[in-house]
Amino acid sequence: MHEFDVIARYFSWDTTATRSVVRGVGDDAAVLDVPADKQLVTSIDTLISGVHFPQHTSAQAIGHKALAVNLSDLAAMGANPAWFTLALTMPEINNDWLKGFSSGLQSLAQHYGVLLVGGDTTRGPLSISIQVMGLVDKGKALLRSGANVGDKIYVTGTLGDAAAGLQTILGKLTLAQTDQQLCQQQLHQPQPRLRESQAIREFASSCIDISDGLLQDLSHILSASEVGAKLDTKDIPFSAALKTLKQAQALQFALSGGDDYQLLFTIPAEKEALFLKVLQADMHCIGVITNDKNTIIDQHDQLLTAIGYNHFHE
Amino acid sequence: MHEFDVIARYFSWDTTATRSVVRGVGDDAAVLDVPADKQLVTSIDTLISGVHFPQHTSAQAIGHKALAVNLSDLAAMGANPAWFTLALTMPEINNDWLKGFSSGLQSLAQHYGVLLVGGDTTRGPLSISIQVMGLVDKGKALLRSGANVGDKIYVTGTLGDAAAGLQTILGKLTLAQTDQQLCQQQLHQPQPRLRESQAIREFASSCIDISDGLLQDLSHILSASEVGAKLDTKDIPFSAALKTLKQAQALQFALSGGDDYQLLFTIPAEKEALFLKVLQADMHCIGVITNDKNTIIDQHDQLLTAIGYNHFHE
Repeated sequence: MHEFDVIARYFSWDTTATRSVVRGVGDDAAVLDVPADKQLVTSIDTLISGVHFPQHTSAQAIGHKALAVNLSDLAAMGANPAWFTLALTMPEINNDWLKGFSSGLQSLAQHYGVLLVGGDTTRGPLSISIQVMGLVDKGKALLRSGANVGDKIYVTGTLGDAAAGLQTILGKLTLAQTDQQLCQQQLHQPQPRLRESQAIREFASSCIDISDGLLQDLSHILSASEVGAKLDTKDIPFSAALKTLKQAQALQFALSGGDDYQLLFTIPAEKEALFLKVLQADMHCIGVITNDKNTIIDQHDQLLTAIGYNHFHE
Repeated sequence: MHEFDVIARYFSWDTTATRSVVRGVGDDAAVLDVPADKQLVTSIDTLISGVHFPQHTSAQAIGHKALAVNLSDLAAMGANPAWFTLALTMPEINNDWLKGFSSGLQSLAQHYGVLLVGGDTTRGPLSISIQVMGLVDKGKALLRSGANVGDKIYVTGTLGDAAAGLQTILGKLTLAQTDQQLCQQQLHQPQPRLRESQAIREFASSCIDISDGLLQDLSHILSASEVGAKLDTKDIPFSAALKTLKQAQALQFALSGGDDYQLLFTIPAEKEALFLKVLQADMHCIGVITNDKNTIIDQHDQLLTAIGYNHFHE
C-alpha cells in the first residue's frame, strides 16, 4: 500500500463540512479560517510505544490516547478544539492495527467535533505525534501564570488511577478485577476535561492539566505565577479503586504518578462564591496558594517534593 | 537532564518579540494571533533517521532539513511562515547533538522569521516531527486543484541533485568532488523556495513542492485538477553536476528521485506574458497541461510513468 493511500483509506472520515476548513487533507498544507474574535491555541504531543503506553496496548486505545492527551492541553488553556494533524510512524502497514487506531482516534475526534486536516505517514518504530489546534476568545486563554496568593486550588476527577493501572499491567500491583479495569481504563482511555474547562474558564486564574503527577504539574503553576501552595492531602480525591490501597501508596500515585489528564486550576477568593454555583460533583478543593515561592507543603506544614515522570530520568 | 530543560536550554532562542505570539513555549499550549484578513496554513512532516536522512547525517543538517521540508510545504501554498512546533524523539540526551541540531534549526528559522512556539521531547528512536504554521491572504492559497488545460508547467531550480547526492553517499554513484559536494548539499540542506513562492503566487493556477520526484508530484496536481501533462524532457533544468552524467540517469534522478524541494507550478496562458516579467533566472518552463486526465507524456508522446519515493514500498 502506498503511503498516500494510508491517509485516504483510514483517516478520511465523513465529517460535516465546516466553512472553517477551506482545504483539509490532500494538499501540501491545510488552509483554515480563524474567526476574527478568536485566538489560535496549539500544542504538539508525541506518544512512543513502550514509553507513553505499554507495548501490546490495543491500537484503538493508542488512537484514543494520542488525541486525548492533546485535547487535554486545550482543556488546560480553556480553548475549544477545532482541528488536528497526525504524524504517524509505523514499522509496517498493518491493516488490522490501522483500523483499530483509526477507530479510536475517530470516535474521540467526532465526539468533540475536531477535524483531521493534515497527516504524514512514515516508516519507522511506532510513534504518533498529534498537533491539535483550538480557538479561544481573545485574551481569555487560561495560563499557568495567573495564580495569586489566597486563590483556592482545585482539581477535577480523581487522581492516581492511571499510575495504579500501569502498576497492575507491570505486575507490581494487584487489585480486585473491577478496580483493575477502572484503573487501566483511566490509563488507556483518559477523557480530556473539555466540558469542565468550559465551566471553569470564566472563574479560574490559572490552569494546567495533570500529566506528570500533581506535584510536578502544580510546580509549573507555582513557578510561572511566582507563588507557593499548601495542600490538604486528606482532600485529594481518590477513586473507589485507590481507596482500597494503603493511604501512603494511593497518595504516592496521586502526587507523583502520571497520565491523570485531570485539570488543576486556581480560583480567586472573590470569585469562589460564584464558582461554587457552577461547581461540578467531580471538582474538589485541595488547597490554597501561598506566598512561599515554589514550595509545596501539606496540612502539617511538611514539605511535599515533586517526583514527576521524566522520560530521560534513569 | 530533565525533559523540560531540553526545550528551555536548546530551543529558547532570543527572538524579536512579536505581538502575534501571545504565549509561546512554556504553557500547555501556545496562544497565537491570526490577523483578520489572513487564513492559517498548516502542515506536519516527520523525519526518521535512516529513512529521510542517512544515518550519520550531521545534527545541524538534520535540524535544517526538518524545518526546510515544512517551510517548503508553505512555499507550495503561497503562504508566509509564522510559527512552528517541534516534537523531538531522541534515544538519549546528547548535548553535542542537541547543540548542532538546534543551530541548524535556529539558523533557518531566524532567516525566515519563523518562531518556535511549542515543543515536546520524548525518549525513543531518533525522529523529528515539525508542524509549521503560516499565513496567506484570504482565498489566495495556491492549491493543487487549479491547473487548467493550456496552462504552462514551470519548475524552480534544478532537479535530481538530492537523489544523486544520496547515491554518492550510498556508494552507488561517483562524481567529481565539487559536484558531489553540491549534490549532498542539496540533499542535506535544501532551501525552501519561499522567495520564489511570493513571486509566483499572483500568477500561478496551481502549485506543489517536489519532494517525491517530478512525476509523482506532478501526478498530484493532475489528479486534483483532473487534467494531464505533456513535458519536454529536454527543458528539465539540470545542475552542472548532473550534466556530467549520462542523460538517462540524470533524467531518472529528476523524474523519480526525491528530496528536491523545488516548486512545480502552472501559469495560465493569459497570465504568462505578465509572469515572464517577474520570471527569475532559475524558473523554467518544462511543459503544458493537457486534457488527457492523469497522463504524463513527453515530447515524443511517450508515456512517462511515475515511480516516486514510497516509504512502505518494498
